Parts: sequence; C-alpha cells; structure tokens
Amino acid sequence: MGVNVGILGATGAVGEEFLAILQERRIPVGRLRLLASARSAGKTICFRGEELRVEEVGPRSFDGLDITFFSAGAAASRVWAPVATAAGARVIDNSSAFRMDEGVPLVVPEINPQAIGDARLIANPNCSTIIMNMAVWPLHRVHRVRRIVVCTYQAASGAGRQAMLELEGQSRDILAGLPASPKVFPYQCAFNLFSHNTPIGEDGYNLEERKMILETRKIFGEPGLAVTATCIRVPVLRTHSEAVNLTFEEPIDEREVREVLSQAPGVTVIDDRAANRFPMPIDAMGKDDCYVGRIRRDLSQEDGRGIDLFVCGDQLRKGAALNGLQIAERIGLG
Amino acid sequence: MGVNVGILGATGAVGEEFLAILQERRIPVGRLRLLASARSAGKTICFRGEELRVEEVGPRSFDGLDITFFSAGAAASRVWAPVATAAGARVIDNSSAFRMDEGVPLVVPEINPQAIGDARLIANPNCSTIIMNMAVWPLHRVHRVRRIVVCTYQAASGAGRQAMLELEGQSRDILAGLPASPKVFPYQCAFNLFSHNTPIGEDGYNLEERKMILETRKIFGEPGLAVTATCIRVPVLRTHSEAVNLTFEEPIDEREVREVLSQAPGVTVIDDRAANRFPMPIDAMGKDDCYVGRIRRDLSQEDGRGIDLFVCGDQLRKGAALNGLQIAERIGLG
Repeated sequence: MGVNVGILGATGAVGEEFLAILQERRIPVGRLRLLASARSAGKTICFRGEELRVEEVGPRSFDGLDITFFSAGAAASRVWAPVATAAGARVIDNSSAFRMDEGVPLVVPEINPQAIGDARLIANPNCSTIIMNMAVWPLHRVHRVRRIVVCTYQAASGAGRQAMLELEGQSRDILAGLPASPKVFPYQCAFNLFSHNTPIGEDGYNLEERKMILETRKIFGEPGLAVTATCIRVPVLRTHSEAVNLTFEEPIDEREVREVLSQAPGVTVIDDRAANRFPMPIDAMGKDDCYVGRIRRDLSQEDGRGIDLFVCGDQLRKGAALNGLQIAERIGLG
Repeated sequence: MGVNVGILGATGAVGEEFLAILQERRIPVGRLRLLASARSAGKTICFRGEELRVEEVGPRSFDGLDITFFSAGAAASRVWAPVATAAGARVIDNSSAFRMDEGVPLVVPEINPQAIGDARLIANPNCSTIIMNMAVWPLHRVHRVRRIVVCTYQAASGAGRQAMLELEGQSRDILAGLPASPKVFPYQCAFNLFSHNTPIGEDGYNLEERKMILETRKIFGEPGLAVTATCIRVPVLRTHSEAVNLTFEEPIDEREVREVLSQAPGVTVIDDRAANRFPMPIDAMGKDDCYVGRIRRDLSQEDGRGIDLFVCGDQLRKGAALNGLQIAERIGLG
C-alpha cells in the first residue's frame, strides 16, 4: 500500500522539487500529506493527476505518517520535528536546526548512510556542503584529504522561490533601464554578485561558510579536517558551482583522481580539455548527478599533494530534495 | 601643447574607456590619433566636443606620436608595436603579446613603476592579474606571501564589447523563453557560468590562469611565488571579482592586513561585517579603485599564516585602460 509521507514546506522550491522527484521515481506512496504555514494552506498541488490540498501544519498533522520531509526553515523544524517524531513519523529535516546536534545523523547517502541507524530525526546537509562533498569524499576515501579551500558560485534558488523570481524580474528591470529594487536579497543580484547574505561571526566567516566547514567534518567523521570557504551568490537560477582546492596527506596522481571520480556514484565527470568543455550550471540544472571537471594537479603545491577541481550541482536536487529523498529511500521509502 | 597620443583599437571597449579617462582627467593632449583595423576605420568618435575620425592603422600612423596605447589584440600588437617604436613613439600594450618577454617591463604603477625605466615598449598586465595584485602586493610588501589560491568571477567585458552585448541580449532571450544562441562566447553566459574560454595547456590550466600565475611572478619580481588559479566567467558586465586565499611566510595579524589595505593606494576597503556589506561588482563599476573585503584569518591554516579576502575591480578601468593610462602618466603624459 506504500508508505505514508508528509511534506512540511510543500509549496516551497525544495518541497516542490521533492514532489517532482517522488513522481519521477514512481515511488509507491500511500497517503501523501502536504503541510505548510497558514499563509500557504488551501493551495492545491497536482500529484500523479490528483489535486491535493495543502493543509496548515498543526499538532495532529503527523498522525499516521511514516516519513516526513521538512523544508520550511529552521524555526518551523524546531517546533514541529518533536511533534512529528512523537507521533511516530521519522523526520528528514532539510533545515539547519539540528544538523550539528550530537545524536542527529547528518547524511549524504553516498557518503555516510551507516549514520542513519534507527534515528527518528535525520538532518539533510547544507546544499553547498553536499555538492562539494560529492566530489571530495570519493577522493578522501582513497587518499586522505588534509585541507580544502573552496569558493562557491551559488544560485538564487538557495534563498527560495521568491529569490529566483527576483533574479528574473530584476534582470528584466535592469535590461529595461530601470533601477534594481531588491526585496528578497539585500543587494542587487542581477548582473552582480555578493558575499552570501548570512550572518557573519566574530571570526569573519558567514554562516554558510561555517556550515560548509563544520558539516563536512561531521559527514566525513573528520573533526580535524581543515576547511576554508568563501561563499558568493551569483546570478544563476538553481545550480551551485564550486571551485575546490585540495591538499592531500600524500602526493596524488591526477589520473587517479579522474578515475576515482569517474566511478563515484552520483558523480559525472565532464573534463574535456581539448574542447574546453567543463561543468556549467546549465549541465546540472534539473539533474541528479553532481558534475566535476577542471581536474588538475595544483602547481602551487610542489610536493604533488594538491588537486584543483570544479563541481556543479543542482541546489534543489542533490543540494536539497534529492538527497532528502535518497535518505528516505534508505529508511524504507520505495 | 601637450603630448601626441595614439590609440590603436580606439573603437573597442578598452579603447573607449581609455578615451573616457583621458577626458575625465583633463590630460593635456596635443594631437590625438584614433587607429583601428579597416573594419572600424571611418567611424567618428567624440573627444572633448570634437568629432575625430578613426583611421585605418598603417605604416605611417605613428609618425609624430609620443605615446601610443595598444588594445587591438596580440596579433595587431605584434605587427604594429615595432612600427610604432621605430617611428619614435612609446607603446603601452594592453595585449598579451609581449608581457612575458624579457626586457619588456610588465607594470602596475602602484607596484613596480621602477620597471618602466626608459623602455620604449611597456606591457599592461592581464586584467585579473592586476586586480588581484592590487590587493596582494601591499601585503606582500610587509609580510612575504608564499602561496596564492585564487578563484575568479570574471565579467563579460574581458571578452570585449560584443561579449557584453551578448550577455544582455541573451538574458533578454532567455527571459522571453527563447533559447540561448551564443556567438561570442562558446557557451551560454546569461544565468550560467563557465570555465574561462582560453586554451588549456597540458597541465590542465587555461591561458587566463597561466597569465595570473606567470604575470604575478614577473610583476612582483618573485619567480618562485606559488600561485594556483581557477578562472570562471560569470554573468556580470564589467567588474571582475576574485576570492583570494593567501599563505604568508610568517603568522600575520588580520587587523594589520585591514590596516595595510586601508592605506594602500588604489584600494578601498569595504568590510562591514555587522551590515554584511562587502565589495560587489556594482561598487567597482566605472570606478578607479579596487575594492577589498571579507578580510579574515583563514581558519584552515592553524599556524596563523593564512588570510582570506575578496576583491572587485572594474575590468575596463584598473584591469585595462586606467592601468595603461597610469603607465602613460609615469612616462610623461599629463
């Protein structure tokens, strides 16, 4: 009869993607309950030819559900995750609310599926973190990575559907000679870029960068892994790109890196030097895999321990909904 | 009566910017000769209220000129630089033709003006290189930099005026639901990004990255400086941005970095953590200074020798025409 599934944040960009993947994969779903805040309640969403009404989330919303996917922000997760687990539903939480909590597994199924165990609450990592880790983990498994320097080129989708609409509308305005009037983002996003608009800590890192550092350590099980990140928002709709500079514990062969990545699950290598063809956001858009290229020995590390590469991943797919659904599959959905 | 000036490539984006700066700075120009290929000859350009006709470059074009600024590509520079210098004109060449030639000074006036000497031919460095160096050199002067990891976010202008028009036109097309049909760039540039479209060497670095590495070493006079670069084209019109990760020879204090950069000529620090306000392309567009921010200790280098920062500079200004004009000023223009 299928598993009973709930989605909190069903009308958001990630919730919508989650529904799209559920349909694509023909996963046998029993009951499907779409939940959202009062503001979005009453909307209808079409799922497998059926019109489903979005309900306002409440204390009884999770009764009878087996698995719930949360993507309504950290505040909503903090309120409703305990309610859902108490009602017997397992929660896969896409927010940052519980990611760094001890006892809450933070999971990329290709990397640390064993961490899921019998946890009732499983955290879905930050989007930029997942996409970077998809490229770095397969290498770390064979030759330990000691240090990561990552610079991101992050899409508007990470800030939600309204942000994507703002990028499009603002691009139209600017092309028409009108001023940019940002509302969702703090600054002009069209034909511009800016440092990721999350709060800056005392050490000068913003929250997005801190997530990349701390979550990677937790997912890899490497509390001492050295990571520095610079997170930048660029005028791209839904694919995050990342330039990754790696230092390995020992000298590493560039061909081996390409070989390992070519065989890594969830990774597609696009690395055609002759044709100057490497991963781009439009390659990854709407796709499940992360795309890796520009694989080369880092000439600034004379001891042969450095590798540079470039990775693109759909922020709404592997960066959010797909990873969550893959976790759900591991715990018995489909 | 002023200096007699020639501009080869007067109708290009950089040539046009050179003329704009000449006017802004009220530099006393005697004769001004605008030169271009046959294709652009006959166009007129307004300079200080006067209509000047663009002439096709030829063997006698440089007679009587004191200083010429070349921005018509490397092939044109190779042909006409010897003609111009033989005619007695000094050449400031914005192309890559002679940059790495021994005996040809490669100059950023804030960094190595002494390199000019009495050279008849002076090379203007690559735009990304200049912009990075404006932030790195003031620090290198006080605490030696050992290694640079740089990731660029490069504007369309680096590929010329047609590329800027393509970005705008293609954005319109995509917003109208039409397919992207790239002509100037090899790939879609609107709402996308791609690895810099210069040839890839056997080592996997593209030519833009190689320029950043080799030219920085020459400008700094540090043949052993370790640099790795990943150069990416983003949908921004005319400001290059760069995330720069530095390793110093010795531990360095973050406050000192901010202090040194605050006092560096040609540099403006925008680094307001509380307001989350850091350099953006729209800050630098049309401006002479390079803007530096996101200054922070790199937490991945435990020995305190690492600094992360972010720099934005107008590719057509400090990245090209302004730097050339500043060289001209050093050799006696204005």
